[in-house]
Amino acid sequence: MARIVQKYGGTSVGDIDRIKIVAKRIKATCDEGHEVVAVVSARSGVTNELIAKAKSIADIPSERELDQLLAIGEQETSALTAMALHALGVGAVSYTGAQAGIFTDKVHTKAKIKTINAKPIEKDLKKGNVVIVAGFQGINEEGNVTTFGRGASDLTAIALAAALKADKCEIYTDVDGVYTADPRVVKQARKLAEISYDEMLELASSGSKVMMSRSVEFAKKYGVIFEVRSSFNHNPGTIVKEEVAYMEKVVVRGVAVDKDQAKVIVSNIPDKPGSAAKVFRALSDSNINVDMIVQNVGRQGVANLTFTVPQTETAKAVKALKPVLSAIGGGQVTIHEHIAKLSVVGVGMKTHSGVAATLFQALADVDINIELISTSEIKISIVIDQARADEAARVAHTAFQLDKA
Amino acid sequence: MARIVQKYGGTSVGDIDRIKIVAKRIKATCDEGHEVVAVVSARSGVTNELIAKAKSIADIPSERELDQLLAIGEQETSALTAMALHALGVGAVSYTGAQAGIFTDKVHTKAKIKTINAKPIEKDLKKGNVVIVAGFQGINEEGNVTTFGRGASDLTAIALAAALKADKCEIYTDVDGVYTADPRVVKQARKLAEISYDEMLELASSGSKVMMSRSVEFAKKYGVIFEVRSSFNHNPGTIVKEEVAYMEKVVVRGVAVDKDQAKVIVSNIPDKPGSAAKVFRALSDSNINVDMIVQNVGRQGVANLTFTVPQTETAKAVKALKPVLSAIGGGQVTIHEHIAKLSVVGVGMKTHSGVAATLFQALADVDINIELISTSEIKISIVIDQARADEAARVAHTAFQLDKA
Repeated sequence: MARIVQKYGGTSVGDIDRIKIVAKRIKATCDEGHEVVAVVSARSGVTNELIAKAKSIADIPSERELDQLLAIGEQETSALTAMALHALGVGAVSYTGAQAGIFTDKVHTKAKIKTINAKPIEKDLKKGNVVIVAGFQGINEEGNVTTFGRGASDLTAIALAAALKADKCEIYTDVDGVYTADPRVVKQARKLAEISYDEMLELASSGSKVMMSRSVEFAKKYGVIFEVRSSFNHNPGTIVKEEVAYMEKVVVRGVAVDKDQAKVIVSNIPDKPGSAAKVFRALSDSNINVDMIVQNVGRQGVANLTFTVPQTETAKAVKALKPVLSAIGGGQVTIHEHIAKLSVVGVGMKTHSGVAATLFQALADVDINIELISTSEIKISIVIDQARADEAARVAHTAFQLDKA
Repeated sequence: MARIVQKYGGTSVGDIDRIKIVAKRIKATCDEGHEVVAVVSARSGVTNELIAKAKSIADIPSERELDQLLAIGEQETSALTAMALHALGVGAVSYTGAQAGIFTDKVHTKAKIKTINAKPIEKDLKKGNVVIVAGFQGINEEGNVTTFGRGASDLTAIALAAALKADKCEIYTDVDGVYTADPRVVKQARKLAEISYDEMLELASSGSKVMMSRSVEFAKKYGVIFEVRSSFNHNPGTIVKEEVAYMEKVVVRGVAVDKDQAKVIVSNIPDKPGSAAKVFRALSDSNINVDMIVQNVGRQGVANLTFTVPQTETAKAVKALKPVLSAIGGGQVTIHEHIAKLSVVGVGMKTHSGVAATLFQALADVDINIELISTSEIKISIVIDQARADEAARVAHTAFQLDKA
């Protein structure tokens, strides 16, 4: 008997029929003699509908209230999934994040898990019940509902797998696993059997929508090995773990495109010590994720800062920057939304040079202009025109011979 | 400065625009210098949609899971209402039933309130916030979500008014107040300025859909005076309180029709002591509300029991009765769904005779057949053919001269 944590994403529980299929899959795991904790997302589309309602009331809704509101999406699917298991004769209990003992810090809409009291779940598992947990949510010490950010039901699953010392953690989604590129864009893309946490992290932060970075970071920190696989078939997925044996031979593991970023240019700010710090402090205080920062000094005494933020946070960023610019004595904010970030990722890069050269040459050959560059040990990211992003992904995929196994 | 508990029903918060109107009304009360706690229902239709989803998974869904599911309807409107208040510059915090400290017994879908810990709400009121509470729900000592039954957001409001020692309790709904009959059916129906708890109770239990009996009982028990009024205009409503001064002059206060009941006939059961008790014990154990019981002995040694139950509970009733009938050695269950219950209500009846005679004569004059009769000190109820229920209400309204002030 193993203890298995499974996570089903929004499309997997997208309607009643799909919830019934998920229940059957859970039952099949139970029938093999395993204990199952299943984490479910909101039905796909529901979170967006709720956000749209909130935005029809206020441009920037209170984050405390947004969390109260958004948490209901997962509460709905968790209760319905438990009912679907009952209909199959399987004992099951649904839990909200609060009921599952998931305690977080006080940061609304992006809360971090502090501790998990696993006792209630352990008790129900001992009774022979399947436990269905509403993903993406917890409770803070003041009793307020908190949520973890978009896509964070994975985080619930991985954190529960760690807290419950689960033998396996399976992330069921609408794709077969992790690919060398988005198969809808790059036809030659291949599914990877295994990938390391670090590569998965760079892919996640680069817009490969399989999983959120935070979930992978959490898994890496607690050594939770997990499998990304499809809930619509029984194909093996991609195992994500610390090190992959044949990794050294491979230079680049995948290409990812992120079209949900915007480029922010803060221009003509006084070029004196502390100006940049103040800008990024203000963004950080507003909990805005900043990526790909470039600073350059322009004409006499003024500097330009360029960086990317999620498109959803541009209004918040502009609001946060306004008082800072008055405080430091000048500067303008410009937003470019029609950009895309393309990244190539692979631990093999650490010991291989020439990756940047290969990428830049491949794009130059098709006249794609590079607006920003940032690099890490195992990743190179560039900002390009959104209209040419898919083409750039195909070109890079071929340049690194990712279509060959 | 007064402390006011307001309750807004499902049609009052039926969409975003209506939620904004509710927020304006709450703001107006705040602007007069009052403390406001507002209890909100789910958007009209939402609870039915959620029940339909549950029933598409299981005929009789787990009640524990049904509560987890249904509670989200009110959680949604409470968060949206708080956001709408923020948009008007009013500080507001939304609470689930659990967060509002509403502790109940363990009976799912029909939980009773045991205690209310008013401290969290008091704290927010002291901070100057409006508190928006999700109606209809609480939490039991095991941390499970419980709900109080349909229409029970009123109960949340009245219980909070008692716990918070509120100066006023206003129940906002889609009607102007309590009428002598349903104005859609009886054109001459008049709005009552005041009504006693007991009359309101009998009207509620008789299908006048203004309020649920339990809420009125609770108000009577704790002496909470409340006003039923419309959220769509500023007309004065109907005040519900212990005694109404001019009450003695009035014999009948109102006529109510309930088309949501079904008649259950348990026929040919062995006529021996304890048979009836076993039948009703089984129904009570399944938490089925039974009304209008008539027993009569049929042919030799067998008896028939006739009673009414809510139409929604007929399947549950049949299921509950099956094992009992085998245990007592026989009997059949028949369900008649096309019935209606008509009631005339008034504390004046206590000291006036002839009310039954007047009612029966009025119906006989138009050839409406009476299938069942039950009476209390201040009410006479009869079961008739559903197809003639509206006509019967008009006839009775005229017979008791309710159209005259």
